[in-house]
This record gives sequence, C-alpha cells and structure tokens, in this order.
Amino acid sequence: MIIQKKAVVLLSGGLDSATTLAIAQQQNYDCYALSFNYGQRHQAELNAAQQLVQNMQVKHHKTIKIGLDAIGGSALTDQMIAVPTNATVGIPVTYVPARNTVFLSLALGWAEVLEAFDIFIGINAVDYSGYPDCRPEYIQAFQNLANLATKASVEGKPITIHTPLIDLNKAEIIQQGIALDVNYHLTVSCYSADDQGAACGVCESCRFRSDGFAVAGVIDPTNYQASTNRSNHQS
Amino acid sequence: MIIQKKAVVLLSGGLDSATTLAIAQQQNYDCYALSFNYGQRHQAELNAAQQLVQNMQVKHHKTIKIGLDAIGGSALTDQMIAVPTNATVGIPVTYVPARNTVFLSLALGWAEVLEAFDIFIGINAVDYSGYPDCRPEYIQAFQNLANLATKASVEGKPITIHTPLIDLNKAEIIQQGIALDVNYHLTVSCYSADDQGAACGVCESCRFRSDGFAVAGVIDPTNYQASTNRSNHQS
Repeated sequence: MIIQKKAVVLLSGGLDSATTLAIAQQQNYDCYALSFNYGQRHQAELNAAQQLVQNMQVKHHKTIKIGLDAIGGSALTDQMIAVPTNATVGIPVTYVPARNTVFLSLALGWAEVLEAFDIFIGINAVDYSGYPDCRPEYIQAFQNLANLATKASVEGKPITIHTPLIDLNKAEIIQQGIALDVNYHLTVSCYSADDQGAACGVCESCRFRSDGFAVAGVIDPTNYQASTNRSNHQS
Repeated sequence: MIIQKKAVVLLSGGLDSATTLAIAQQQNYDCYALSFNYGQRHQAELNAAQQLVQNMQVKHHKTIKIGLDAIGGSALTDQMIAVPTNATVGIPVTYVPARNTVFLSLALGWAEVLEAFDIFIGINAVDYSGYPDCRPEYIQAFQNLANLATKASVEGKPITIHTPLIDLNKAEIIQQGIALDVNYHLTVSCYSADDQGAACGVCESCRFRSDGFAVAGVIDPTNYQASTNRSNHQS
C-alpha cells in the first residue's frame, strides 16, 4: 500500500485554484482543501469551492472564517469601494491587503497540525493584475519564513510552497485544467457574482477569464448573469 | 504641529504586549492596537486588551475574528488538549500553529490600509518556551516577506517589524513596563484564566510571570483565583 503525502491546497472556488487542486491530485497528493470566509461580498465562491470538492472527490475540506472586513481597504471586502469594470493601471482596488500572506499563514498552520509539508496555491505572475503577493520572489520569501516558523522546521523537515500556475497565462491554465477534467462550469471567478454564482461578465476578473477561454480555443462554460452584455470587451 | 507616525501594535492583553504598547507610545507613535479573537478558550485576555486600551488612552483598537479553532492542534484553541501545569520539554502543546505568522500577516494588512510602516510585536526569545516563531531570525524573515508583499513595498516604502522585548527576560520586561507606568493588574497572561480574568497560578505562563515579578523585585499585582496554591512552584 502506497502512503500518499498530504498537501494543503488553497481553494477559493475560482478557475485557478480548481486547476491547482487537479494538478496536486494528479501528483498523487492526498489533498486537504482550505477555503476562507473573509468578509468577501458574496458567498458564491464558497459555494463553488464546496461543489468542486464534491465533484473532485476531495475528502478533506475546511473553511476558516477571518474578519478581514474589519480592516477594510479593498473593493472585495469593503461595501464602500466599488468594483471597477474597466482595466486599471497599477494595483487595483480589488487587491485585499496582505491576503495571500494571511491565507498562506493559515495554510501553514493547518499543514503543521496535519504534518503535511506541501502547500499548493494557484497564484499566477502573468495575469497577476499587479498584486505584489503573486510574484515568485514573494513566494520564495514566504517559503523561507515557513521554514523558520514551524515545529517541523525546527526539526529539519522543510515546507515547500507549490505554485504550479505561476508562469502560465490564463489560456495555458485552462488547457491544463481541461486535460485534467476540471469542470470549469462549477468555478466562480467574478468579483460581483450573484447568489447563484452567475458572473457579471464585465469586471476585470471576468474579462481575464473570458479572454482565456477564447485564446485557449475552449467554449466558455461560465454561468453568466442573464443581463450580461459582454460584446464590447471580448478579445 | 508634529505629525505622529502610525504604528500597528499587536495587543493580546498579556504582560508582554502591554509593555510593548507602552514602549511604542513612548517612542511617540500613534498606536493602532490589534487584538484577535481566534477561538482561544477564554475571553479574559480580550477583556484585558479592552481595559488596557482605555487605561493607556489608545484611540484606535480593532479585534479581528479568526477561526483558528477550525484547524485545532493547540491546547489554547482545542478543548480536547489539556493545558499543562508543569514545565515542558521542547515545544509545548500551548503552541498555536503558525499563530505569530497569522497575527503578523493581519497586522501587515491593517498597516497597509492605514499607510503605517511600523508594526510592534511583544515577542521574546529569552522566555520563549521553545516557540519557533519567537526567534529573531523568524522576525527577520517576516520583515523580508512584508517588504515583498505590499503595495508600499512595491513603491519602495519599507515595513519595519519592531520587537522591543526580544532580548529581555521577564524581569527586565516588567522593570521597563513599571518605568512606563503600565498597570500590570489589568493584564492577563494565564492560559486558563477564569471569566473575570483571574489567573490559575500554575500553568507555564503563570509561572514565568510570577517568577518575573519576584526577580524584578516588584510586588506581583496579578489577579489570582481564590483557589490558587502557588507555594510549591515560586522561585
């Protein structure tokens, strides 16, 4: 009997994290999916994470609540800041302060409890929207930190942060996921999804995603809102 | 008019964090105190943080909820693991997985929102109980991470993590705090404090604290539980 290595996989319910989960499974890890309820505006992506876990037969899934809305500062957690519908220059208002640092920290905590030494995160430096915490040098710094932060590191068992999507563009991510049978219809990438998970089609995240399907030559399976008029920003 | 620099100060409600807050105030920072409700067994330390903030005239205080109990693994968040009353060898069960990494991450997020570039944390490498995330090399790694993680770092404004207690023993910390008029009666260090914040007197944290007052030559102002029998472990 082969004992599978455990991995904690961050699962937002979006396209990238679903693909990352499929890659971790293909690498034969026993996957512990981790989602966050961090005061984001809608619950659609948490519902998507739940559906993905069932669809992909992941046995372990936890959702940790974090009151990120207490500190505000992002259109994704602060009702006072509008989600933009046009491409932005520089770091957009949808950036959540220190989000990946917080999420990776909690993944590290769970990994420590599980005695897992591998963490997967679906960040991406190509379509990264200018978020500073999506860069390779940031991930390297987090891995250095992790290897000083934990019991296991004190005992000489290193933690590895896996970022299998980091050098891929959206179309390449989609092609990988299709090859691994990811059901993208279940995923939600939209910053303004409705309660049923239907996407607005006009926010920056929707545009990246829809362009990705077009470039990949894959029919876009996204569940769009009936009122969506996407004709003026298709690539 | 002098514009004060802002600092985020982690405030657990314990002796060390209260002293750290007093030091940050003395250094003329406008202090934004940050506490966490992370599923710890008792609310006494959060009540203590609230009292300290009032007593020390701190204008800004936030408490962020984090469901660390979802991942378990510590006697401080998991009802199934008993708090030890004797000195332990190695890393004790009161270690909360990745706690300081999670707390510093959230402090970093708030600092980013506030446009603050200084974070104070009352960790200590002398009486550190074997917690890996209380060591100077860990803090240095976090600072390196912070300077890659944020908008400000992208714009060349460095973050500094201040650890004014890191090289002090408990008695030296107490002497600094007394010089700065910290009211230690308000602080709670006990892992098993009751609802009124009264300390058990027998857990590892109580013993470090009580020994610290003895060595400092300061009368211990701690609010102990009536049933406490501390005679057999006083230094």
